[in-house]
Amino acid sequence: MLGILGGMGPLATVDFLAKLVRATPARRDQDHIPTLVCSAADIPDRVASILGQGPDPLPAMRAALARLEAGGATRIAIPCNTAHHWHAALQAGTALPILHIVDAVADDLVRCALTDGPVGLLASEGTLRAGLYPERLARHGFTCLTPDPDGQAAVAGAIHLVKAGRVAEAAPILEAQALSLTAAGCRRVVLACTEIPLALAGAGDDLASLMVDATDALARACVAACLADAVALPLVA
Amino acid sequence: MLGILGGMGPLATVDFLAKLVRATPARRDQDHIPTLVCSAADIPDRVASILGQGPDPLPAMRAALARLEAGGATRIAIPCNTAHHWHAALQAGTALPILHIVDAVADDLVRCALTDGPVGLLASEGTLRAGLYPERLARHGFTCLTPDPDGQAAVAGAIHLVKAGRVAEAAPILEAQALSLTAAGCRRVVLACTEIPLALAGAGDDLASLMVDATDALARACVAACLADAVALPLVA
Repeated sequence: MLGILGGMGPLATVDFLAKLVRATPARRDQDHIPTLVCSAADIPDRVASILGQGPDPLPAMRAALARLEAGGATRIAIPCNTAHHWHAALQAGTALPILHIVDAVADDLVRCALTDGPVGLLASEGTLRAGLYPERLARHGFTCLTPDPDGQAAVAGAIHLVKAGRVAEAAPILEAQALSLTAAGCRRVVLACTEIPLALAGAGDDLASLMVDATDALARACVAACLADAVALPLVA
Repeated sequence: MLGILGGMGPLATVDFLAKLVRATPARRDQDHIPTLVCSAADIPDRVASILGQGPDPLPAMRAALARLEAGGATRIAIPCNTAHHWHAALQAGTALPILHIVDAVADDLVRCALTDGPVGLLASEGTLRAGLYPERLARHGFTCLTPDPDGQAAVAGAIHLVKAGRVAEAAPILEAQALSLTAAGCRRVVLACTEIPLALAGAGDDLASLMVDATDALARACVAACLADAVALPLVA
């Protein structure tokens, strides 16, 4: 049973689950992946904590993980990029394998077979400050480019708009920042915050073809891992 | 913590979760309702069981409910109409209150304040055969009307199309059956299978204003119940 440590935010978790269903080869209910989701919306703000402006979310994340373990999850995914700042700490506390969203994105970028130019990042201030992407993508030979300070402030504001349900207002802000990154030489722009694809779902084909959606990458990595599990052993807890 | 006994089907559960998020008054992640979802896609087919053509899904539903209890759920909802055939059996096995989707629909119909004409039902063959709606809606003074046998066969086929991801093909079939029910005198048509609103999401305003979406009604009933819980006691397990 796939365990989803979610709720960061709640709409992003729903978007992840929809992408999980779509990524699963299925013709009837029973072909889908049994999934246990903890939408722990009460987890303290991850970005505020990384910036030293809020409480540590790790205890609440550990409590949600314990609920998933108690419910019989056998493999964990976290549809929130910023939360991966605590990936190692969470993994240290459980025997269940926790997929890493940046590895899922790296697999996507490797499949694109791009060798020149940096990878653009649209991410929360917390994800950037924690250095999640540059360090982990460097292992695959990728360098990263982020918006300038004004652009990053715009991205952060757009993420908050999505969390408040004001998705339509966030879209043009994020599109402009994605285009700035491609103008600066990025061959791909990673939507490295799970709120961002919610706003860019209606982006035109030209822009969509340049974007790597971390939520979708994680969903496809989950399907691949669970189908491999199902071959190795029955999908029961 | 709200527990969702889901996966019947998986996409309908995602639709329910999206409606739950939208129905919640929230400006930030932490305003949302902590939710534990078991998307138990491996539960045997409910309709086949009611028609005497498949195994009993109750043991698998009880196992999913046990996972939710183990994970700390304090209140349960089931975003699948047909599964409510086993509502009483599930409720008998747990101290956690299980909301009833037909009661949520009845509340909606009462709010509409319609006193004349029957209520149309677009539902699975299992829901109709189990008599879930007529019996429970009669307590509120409503009578029900269902499609004729050919129409009902078309509805059943459309539900299977949605489960196979062929949503666009299902839409015109369901729209035609909804219009037949209104032509026969129904003032409201209940989308009494959680696959059906997935197909009718793009219906025109004229038709949409006549439809009562059971998924949405259940989501709003959950929000009301959980907000009342939060006033009575903190929302922790």
